[in-house]
Amino acid sequence: MSHQTDANCIFCKIIAGQIPSMKLLETTHSYAFLDIGPIAPKHSLVIPKHHAAKLHELPDEYLADLLPVAKKVALASGAEQYNVLQNNGRMAHQLVDHVHFHVIPKPDEQQGLGVGWPATQPEKEELQKIYDELKEKL
Amino acid sequence: MSHQTDANCIFCKIIAGQIPSMKLLETTHSYAFLDIGPIAPKHSLVIPKHHAAKLHELPDEYLADLLPVAKKVALASGAEQYNVLQNNGRMAHQLVDHVHFHVIPKPDEQQGLGVGWPATQPEKEELQKIYDELKEKL
Repeated sequence: MSHQTDANCIFCKIIAGQIPSMKLLETTHSYAFLDIGPIAPKHSLVIPKHHAAKLHELPDEYLADLLPVAKKVALASGAEQYNVLQNNGRMAHQLVDHVHFHVIPKPDEQQGLGVGWPATQPEKEELQKIYDELKEKL
Repeated sequence: MSHQTDANCIFCKIIAGQIPSMKLLETTHSYAFLDIGPIAPKHSLVIPKHHAAKLHELPDEYLADLLPVAKKVALASGAEQYNVLQNNGRMAHQLVDHVHFHVIPKPDEQQGLGVGWPATQPEKEELQKIYDELKEKL
């Protein structure tokens, strides 16, 4: 099977074996490896073999394979608590422009993902307006 | 198709139509709706129709459908930057014990997900030990 790749992408190079990685698991569509700059022990990455910067650019066949692989990695970690995070764009904390899912154990308050949650409580009318806008595009 | 449900789960009730929701999209396996306590406009949730608290408890057929649905929602939002987040466990910021993926636009620094990232740089030997532990379970 031939995948779309980018010769300058560090994750494409990892998949191709041109850069070494601590590979955990590989399927036809996906590749999982240990993050070497972890925010908690066993912090891992699951990536598609198709090069795309953002989730909405990825073909469904690749999207469909990522979470079953993430599940295997999460189970192997033995973590009771963990976050699954995928970032799109620099402001959203994406550093490598190839879709990647972080599987991050949360062993205690200090380690793992810190979550900032600026919750709002919009009026019903405001929500309805946003809903109508979204529905129009679906 | 019959799904495993929990009569006391708020998300199972939403799927069943027993509690109203601002439904965006529905497939055989998944259900997407607007979050009414958003951290950014168009903050949405994508959930499986199968009741399971954590990602690693969810059958693969449900896992496989979630991201293609999240992609549709992300595309409809028109967001250039966004986060996809799924939390497992209270300490990991999970509040409802039914697997849910947040699709959260990041329109500016103030709105959307705040990411705390306590990065570490483990020695090679330490990484190797963790890797060996993980590999043993895969």
